[in-house]
Amino acid sequence: MTSRTETTFSPPVMEARRWLEGVTFPPERPLINVSQAAPVDPPPEQLRKVIAEAALNEPQAHLYGPVLGRPDLREEVARQWCGAYGGAIAADQVAITSGCNQAFAATIAGLCTEADEVILPTPWYFNHKMWLDMQGVTSVPLPTDDALLPDPGRAEALITPRTRAISLVTPNNPGGVEYPAELVRAFFDLARRHGIALIVDETYRDFDARSGAPHDLFTDPSWDDTLIQLYSFSKAYRLTGHRVGAMVASRARLAEAEKFLDTVTICPNQLGQIAALWGMQNLSQWLAGERDEILDRRAAISDNMAKLKGKGWRLMGCGAYFAYLRHPFAMPSDELAQKLVAEAGILLLPGTMFQPAEAPQGKRELRVAFANVDRAEIGTLFDRLSALDWPLAPH
Amino acid sequence: MTSRTETTFSPPVMEARRWLEGVTFPPERPLINVSQAAPVDPPPEQLRKVIAEAALNEPQAHLYGPVLGRPDLREEVARQWCGAYGGAIAADQVAITSGCNQAFAATIAGLCTEADEVILPTPWYFNHKMWLDMQGVTSVPLPTDDALLPDPGRAEALITPRTRAISLVTPNNPGGVEYPAELVRAFFDLARRHGIALIVDETYRDFDARSGAPHDLFTDPSWDDTLIQLYSFSKAYRLTGHRVGAMVASRARLAEAEKFLDTVTICPNQLGQIAALWGMQNLSQWLAGERDEILDRRAAISDNMAKLKGKGWRLMGCGAYFAYLRHPFAMPSDELAQKLVAEAGILLLPGTMFQPAEAPQGKRELRVAFANVDRAEIGTLFDRLSALDWPLAPH
Repeated sequence: MTSRTETTFSPPVMEARRWLEGVTFPPERPLINVSQAAPVDPPPEQLRKVIAEAALNEPQAHLYGPVLGRPDLREEVARQWCGAYGGAIAADQVAITSGCNQAFAATIAGLCTEADEVILPTPWYFNHKMWLDMQGVTSVPLPTDDALLPDPGRAEALITPRTRAISLVTPNNPGGVEYPAELVRAFFDLARRHGIALIVDETYRDFDARSGAPHDLFTDPSWDDTLIQLYSFSKAYRLTGHRVGAMVASRARLAEAEKFLDTVTICPNQLGQIAALWGMQNLSQWLAGERDEILDRRAAISDNMAKLKGKGWRLMGCGAYFAYLRHPFAMPSDELAQKLVAEAGILLLPGTMFQPAEAPQGKRELRVAFANVDRAEIGTLFDRLSALDWPLAPH
Repeated sequence: MTSRTETTFSPPVMEARRWLEGVTFPPERPLINVSQAAPVDPPPEQLRKVIAEAALNEPQAHLYGPVLGRPDLREEVARQWCGAYGGAIAADQVAITSGCNQAFAATIAGLCTEADEVILPTPWYFNHKMWLDMQGVTSVPLPTDDALLPDPGRAEALITPRTRAISLVTPNNPGGVEYPAELVRAFFDLARRHGIALIVDETYRDFDARSGAPHDLFTDPSWDDTLIQLYSFSKAYRLTGHRVGAMVASRARLAEAEKFLDTVTICPNQLGQIAALWGMQNLSQWLAGERDEILDRRAAISDNMAKLKGKGWRLMGCGAYFAYLRHPFAMPSDELAQKLVAEAGILLLPGTMFQPAEAPQGKRELRVAFANVDRAEIGTLFDRLSALDWPLAPH
């Protein structure tokens, strides 16, 4: 007898954190932690004041709210989405969830049952894989190309009568790559043609290097027959500790999601929602500055790749909070990642955490979550990587 | 093809709320809402100040925390539990969850897979039934006796090779009844003898009329081979809008729960945990007053039953936040509940929401969640019930 949780692996971020146990980092070579995609600073003071004010003076902030979220926040998402993406998105096509992972979980509960299949481009986001495992749903890996882009033709060949959805993450975690609008559209058309759902997780949307809408799916008047979009307020407004995400989908799908959300959390917490709403209404200029900083860090990654020139490294993808690298060493990435902690003072996640166990690629890949390290630290990170003189893998 | 959510029903509380749509309540007969078990007042001012202070000045309050919760809160639960229950409970046997429903969900994910079985006394808590439905787990109803108590012998006859757990709620939702310590112990022994888990949901523990420990299970040095206890901070400290609950179980079970919790919410929100900890450390005297008030309302229910004397009503159970009643009318409770909205200005939940569809009992039963109505309103509620002159069911 194997329970649901026994069919999947332990949380990678927690596992990686355990590699730090017992390791000391000398003052002249402090730990560079590029393992997790999360802000390490609190939200701006004004936003903190809004939360404090609500805690003190808004009684409703402490009580149950609607399962699908506060109406004012749902309306604001709908309003801003109409502007950002074009097309028509109504407040009752938006649900607020306790983080974006939960939006994915609710989506899958509404689409799938035992032994159904969902197609995930690889490298994949491990929490998606874990949730599908725990739901008895098969994750069908769709290997991406050298630029980490998935191919709709290759995806089509994987569709079976049990396929319920294709799930994309763009900008991608872990790959960092921004999917071109035409590619997202091609997946949408493919999904619609086969009567399956297209899930598009846009957690890192606010840090997309492109200006304008990243895709045109919402301009389709019937977008909601196929598209389910997921979003997170955590990255934009530094609200990771508050757990606020969103699911944008048809009313019928949200009625299904409501059953799941009611049962698993009853409602999203209220203060987080109040914070997200205020952020959306007041922090767009501040957020633009945050994006500039992330884009500068991204540029720093590209700039620093020069230090690894001729050493066999390759930058496969870079964007959002992530650089995804192919390493040159004659050891699997999970072993390499643990060695990097003790010997180079670097904590990052190995590609094995983002690839199926049977896929050889993961052993050659590493994810660097660079959002928390500034340009100077990125320089140091690459100095340390370039100094490694471990045995190389054969070509 | 039926998805997970399509195998279950819509959230009862949300459905009942919809019965209010389009109904007007005259000023001389305002709505009495006894549908949901939730405080309607915010937490005390001191606690609100603690939350505000953390929002302003504690950067960590806005960032991801550990999946299983803040160490200080886990330690405080362990410490207070040792005192309250006797026996040894360690901090790493406590996980903090985003509400008590999520603790149940994580528990089931760690115990069960497709087509497994969990035994639930009926009337059951509907969110438990919904979660089991959505996990492909069969809820095996265990009908209770006239005092709403489940019988271990009857439960034993329901155990099959697919049974993974028996799940009790005490004080009970919806029944209000407090299970005697010996009864809980008998279920524990039964579960252990069969190598299955005993889940004990003690959400309403702080409003138990009995002083002292409600059961002795934690005094067993090996309690965690069988017992999984669930708890909610929402009721005690009026934190429903913050989503904070707990799961007390073995380290091995919490390692399994960690996979589920990481994937479904990443971590419990931080401000709610800070509030719960402060509440535990500072509000015991205040909570004693809250309990006195709830116990007085409970007494008011019993007192007011006199108004229904000779009219065919029966008070089946009363405690925690709930009175569970058998009504005398010649109509099913779901129809009756909707009629009560328009014709008596009362919103309550029908027994059909707490019983299997095939069980006839639900049609005769009603749940009154009395925590939000004071002694005067309870008097009015019973005046309205006693004035009903609808056709009676045959004996």
